[in-house]
Amino acid sequence: MAKPIGFHMGLEEFRRHGYAAVDWIADYYARVETFPVLAQVRPGEVRAALPPEPPERGESFAAMLQDLERVILPGITHWQSPNFFAFFPANTSGPAILGELLAAGLGVQGMLWVTSPACTELETHVLDWLAALLGLPDRFRSSGAGGGVIQDTASNASLCALLAARERATGGESNERGCDGRLVAYASTQAHASIEKAMGIAGLGRKNLRLIGVDAAMALRPELLAEAIRADRAAGKIPCCAVATVGTTSSLAIDPVAGLGQLCRAEGLWLHVDAAMAGTAALCPEFRHLQAGLECADSYCFNPHKWMFTNFDCDCFYVADRSALIRALSILPEYLRNPETEAGAVFDYRDWQIQLGRRFRALKLWLVIRHYGAEGLRHHIRRHVELAQQFAAWVQVDAQFELAVAPVLNLVCFRHRGGDEVNERLLERLNASGRLYLTHTRLGERYTLRFCVGQTHTELEHVQRAWDSIRSAAPQ
Amino acid sequence: MAKPIGFHMGLEEFRRHGYAAVDWIADYYARVETFPVLAQVRPGEVRAALPPEPPERGESFAAMLQDLERVILPGITHWQSPNFFAFFPANTSGPAILGELLAAGLGVQGMLWVTSPACTELETHVLDWLAALLGLPDRFRSSGAGGGVIQDTASNASLCALLAARERATGGESNERGCDGRLVAYASTQAHASIEKAMGIAGLGRKNLRLIGVDAAMALRPELLAEAIRADRAAGKIPCCAVATVGTTSSLAIDPVAGLGQLCRAEGLWLHVDAAMAGTAALCPEFRHLQAGLECADSYCFNPHKWMFTNFDCDCFYVADRSALIRALSILPEYLRNPETEAGAVFDYRDWQIQLGRRFRALKLWLVIRHYGAEGLRHHIRRHVELAQQFAAWVQVDAQFELAVAPVLNLVCFRHRGGDEVNERLLERLNASGRLYLTHTRLGERYTLRFCVGQTHTELEHVQRAWDSIRSAAPQ
Repeated sequence: MAKPIGFHMGLEEFRRHGYAAVDWIADYYARVETFPVLAQVRPGEVRAALPPEPPERGESFAAMLQDLERVILPGITHWQSPNFFAFFPANTSGPAILGELLAAGLGVQGMLWVTSPACTELETHVLDWLAALLGLPDRFRSSGAGGGVIQDTASNASLCALLAARERATGGESNERGCDGRLVAYASTQAHASIEKAMGIAGLGRKNLRLIGVDAAMALRPELLAEAIRADRAAGKIPCCAVATVGTTSSLAIDPVAGLGQLCRAEGLWLHVDAAMAGTAALCPEFRHLQAGLECADSYCFNPHKWMFTNFDCDCFYVADRSALIRALSILPEYLRNPETEAGAVFDYRDWQIQLGRRFRALKLWLVIRHYGAEGLRHHIRRHVELAQQFAAWVQVDAQFELAVAPVLNLVCFRHRGGDEVNERLLERLNASGRLYLTHTRLGERYTLRFCVGQTHTELEHVQRAWDSIRSAAPQ
Repeated sequence: MAKPIGFHMGLEEFRRHGYAAVDWIADYYARVETFPVLAQVRPGEVRAALPPEPPERGESFAAMLQDLERVILPGITHWQSPNFFAFFPANTSGPAILGELLAAGLGVQGMLWVTSPACTELETHVLDWLAALLGLPDRFRSSGAGGGVIQDTASNASLCALLAARERATGGESNERGCDGRLVAYASTQAHASIEKAMGIAGLGRKNLRLIGVDAAMALRPELLAEAIRADRAAGKIPCCAVATVGTTSSLAIDPVAGLGQLCRAEGLWLHVDAAMAGTAALCPEFRHLQAGLECADSYCFNPHKWMFTNFDCDCFYVADRSALIRALSILPEYLRNPETEAGAVFDYRDWQIQLGRRFRALKLWLVIRHYGAEGLRHHIRRHVELAQQFAAWVQVDAQFELAVAPVLNLVCFRHRGGDEVNERLLERLNASGRLYLTHTRLGERYTLRFCVGQTHTELEHVQRAWDSIRSAAPQ
């Protein structure tokens, strides 16, 4: 785009429009609290505002920014509003947004080391940094037999873990000849739905995932897992993998990693630990006990794109033995052969993931860690935990409300004492108000509200106002 | 980031750093031809320039931009150089880069309609636009039983197609109970390696992909496919899927879609058409004949992130019957339930893909189409094809070189007449020079150079200089 040729955007135009886009984003964050957090449009409303036919002639960038305001913004659910308390967060930050911009500008492919060595090496390096920052066992670092890779999502990290476990259990047979329905895997009844989905995708079969019962804190009971493994072996099944969750989606329950690790090691099962959101808390030494026992895990993942100020997508996936993963996923056609790969001197990350192509995602993660420093990251994680615990304290002393489970870290599960119907109506009313966005789950069959503090800019005032809104909207 | 709180980047800082990042990108494109196209660093060199330990304290954005220059740039293989002729392109453009920036700023999740209705509806809409622009059959539009979705890569599009085919062939059995090794699928010997990889991932088994022979133009021979299907049925196997490639990675060979479509329909096989790079050519009516017969295909994909000026990742995946795909991939835990999903009134794109989370990728695609207009896109595609055909004409009249196959669209496969060893050394010399980047393949067992014209800013001068470099580097 050095000189505008043909229909391309010229360099000076790019600068001008780029500044305008940066300004648009800054202005968006300045006014994000003026929008309803949950989009209030009806199905089809956004499409109805778009021209049915594509444009024959090019249009101006100004026209596009106008339509972003007019058509798109009303259809946005504002994940970056400090009043977003739904699901898990998918937070952003200035350095992460600029990291995405720079990566888009460079536009490189990181599928092989040779297709951009810096893309691969920065990724390995930053994942080693994070292993240090989180206090992960040395076996997950690239200096030994393990290492880290950025996946798009924890869904794909789980799928990759299952495939590596499948590979280890069948010695390549399932990859070459196909599955035979005998392998089984385990997770708690509270594990993320993506595990069951991955069982189907991997040809292992959704019904071959055993959902193991939990205790009062919603954590997996290892003795029930041991029983299930025995029963499966007796029935001719082949147990190959267990997934422990550090921070379930429903209630942030923490499965006992140490106990599960010992059991899996004794039984020869691959243990994958899914710490998608809660893993970030391990930046703070005082929260590391929640995932104690990782020494016996075969793989681990957490998502900086949830709670570590790094734009989606960015899931950090670690394996203790990268060779099982690579055996499951490597394939080398002639058109990808190159001297560095043949020499085995480098990581080719396409062998660590489902896809071939890959973006330069390490760049944003590098900028986030450098902008905040370890102290900055710890500061904000601690602050979010304090805010959630403050919210829980208010719930606890209010006679109309109750905590559904003891709040862990930054998630509070609570309910009005009036029963399911009252809570459902309350949630609808709150989300329709646009003042905040909450979602729900069911715990012990009861409809339960979830309040998750993790958006980058959420401060005490937002949590205070949210609680006021909840109390006002509740039946008196 | 309205006011700088704690360690967050404040709004005014974000504007300042954002302008600097935009300027850095503009300057990068202005000087991209001054760098060696293929990175010249040795394994480990990038990491050695990075601090071994993560920073405890935050650093300035200026320091990061300096390291981008000092550490990262020498390790970049410049996919956005107009002298990049390797693999397939992964081109970018001004509007696409700014689309990525705006999407990063909004930071929404498009997993469900409700989590940002505009993210879902703009995607459906723009994919319908593209179906019109490419002249795809109506059955791929969202108004009927089909529709389009943005996948990250053609690898995942193929995986999703296989999963939908598996679902249709087994009525949910393979998804629920696991695969049993009986299903088989078909593609040509020239099909992309991701098909075989996907067979392994899906538990169907890599060996259950039959690689069907090709004709002199490297296109799949339907009569050999018919034979293979007969043989498999006779052996008790269950044929479920065939993949036709429109533009193979090695040589841009075009499988006969119409003939394969009729055969697959008669035999009850799912036909997936992989037009990853070449599909973009269908923007120009004169190239549409290359994929004539799509009326009988069950799914189709092409990658705007290859040759349509849209940043990676952006693969457009269409299905004629979305219900098979959704049955294969849908799962609905309590924490994702919402009224719009329950009413069935909306698309929830997490049911159309492997992952749960998803970025707002439609935004960049929308900006690209609007910036160029259909006429601008057609103009540049035609220009690239002309440039490649010009290069092929020069090869053809040079006594030292020969074409390996007749050049199709924007890819020229050629070789020096001196044999494999000479061509291998020639490629090494050219890539080490930094003046251009070429890759190779093998066609009919012979080492063959590939020259693919598709980088956004490649013009006649670059192709001319590349040809001069190739001739100069060849043994005289």
